[in-house]
Amino acid sequence: MASTGGPDGYVPSARSVVELLGLLAYGELLAFDRMAADSRLAPDVERRAAMAQLAASEIANYNALADRIRELGYEPETVMAPFMTAVTDFHDSTAPRDWLEGLVKAYVGDAISYDFHREVAEFLEPADRELVRGVLPDEKHSEFLVREIKAAISQDEAVAGRLALWARRLVGEALTQAQRAASDSEGLTDLIVLGAGDLQAVGELLRRLTNNHAERMKAIGLSN
Amino acid sequence: MASTGGPDGYVPSARSVVELLGLLAYGELLAFDRMAADSRLAPDVERRAAMAQLAASEIANYNALADRIRELGYEPETVMAPFMTAVTDFHDSTAPRDWLEGLVKAYVGDAISYDFHREVAEFLEPADRELVRGVLPDEKHSEFLVREIKAAISQDEAVAGRLALWARRLVGEALTQAQRAASDSEGLTDLIVLGAGDLQAVGELLRRLTNNHAERMKAIGLSN
Repeated sequence: MASTGGPDGYVPSARSVVELLGLLAYGELLAFDRMAADSRLAPDVERRAAMAQLAASEIANYNALADRIRELGYEPETVMAPFMTAVTDFHDSTAPRDWLEGLVKAYVGDAISYDFHREVAEFLEPADRELVRGVLPDEKHSEFLVREIKAAISQDEAVAGRLALWARRLVGEALTQAQRAASDSEGLTDLIVLGAGDLQAVGELLRRLTNNHAERMKAIGLSN
Repeated sequence: MASTGGPDGYVPSARSVVELLGLLAYGELLAFDRMAADSRLAPDVERRAAMAQLAASEIANYNALADRIRELGYEPETVMAPFMTAVTDFHDSTAPRDWLEGLVKAYVGDAISYDFHREVAEFLEPADRELVRGVLPDEKHSEFLVREIKAAISQDEAVAGRLALWARRLVGEALTQAQRAASDSEGLTDLIVLGAGDLQAVGELLRRLTNNHAERMKAIGLSN
């Protein structure tokens, strides 16, 4: 077996890999759905089309993940089923009330998802590692989102405080639902604990995710 | 000037071309929006993802059209503005009530749009002709839609009658709103009348569109 970035000798079980792919796939599908809906909040057609473009790119990622799930001999629907409630609840509890909240949600979601993909990719064997790395959000997307958020803050300072609070709520909800998804899924829990090495290493992984998030928020003017 | 498929010597004005591109672009953007929403009507996640994929492909087409509009020195937003009401009203008056209506709407919309693109492409000079031909709906999409519609009809004959009525309503609304769009837009009217040659030729063009539609409906089991 090819080596992975996890502790020596750790090779994730087929079940672990398939559960991870299922979670990521359903995440992409719902991200498409909600970003498509959020694009209607745009103040003009150009921005609306830009958000629609971000949504559309999630579908290509969904297809890549679903294809791999089928290749491994599973049905995407079955594999995604255990994660549907957690992912749906995350989105239901964080429906943006306006365009700016939609931008921040897209940015925070993309960025944390980017970091998470990069971290868990290390626990996988080469083929799946490449797949999970390959469905990372496009950096050009983040550029559009960052530019728009910065412009909005520079026009109205009160906006920064409101959006910083919103970003905190997004991360809180994401962590709550991620814990729920993991506790409903033995294979996924195994992958993260055994891939990271032990529970302490999982704690460090979570700290890296939240630290990176905090730094990004600071960089775009949303003090955390 | 390069020749076009219209009457000898006819070269569409910049305004005519830009108005056509604006209509097509806004059509793509709204098609994305409505198909993304309609994907939620799917009975399972696989079908939902398939409809989401159809929606996503409209965005690539929108971008190609918007890029060309900018290249010609216009703002897509401005150019699309005159057509927004007609396109929005079409979709508002034809919101599918269930998954099957969504499938038929996607199929009828794709197919008539395909024919219309092919016809008007002939009135344009080579660069725009290629562009308008290039943003044709993907044939693979139609295959998915036809397969699903045929399967639904074969399981329940009463469905065919209901969907045939629905398809007729879709075409009626489309013609109503197309007339409205044309009457609000001198450049577009010019393009179609002068491109076709005269009013009689426009009538023939419309007849070809509706005949092709009727034949397609018959072929998938929706007698017209």
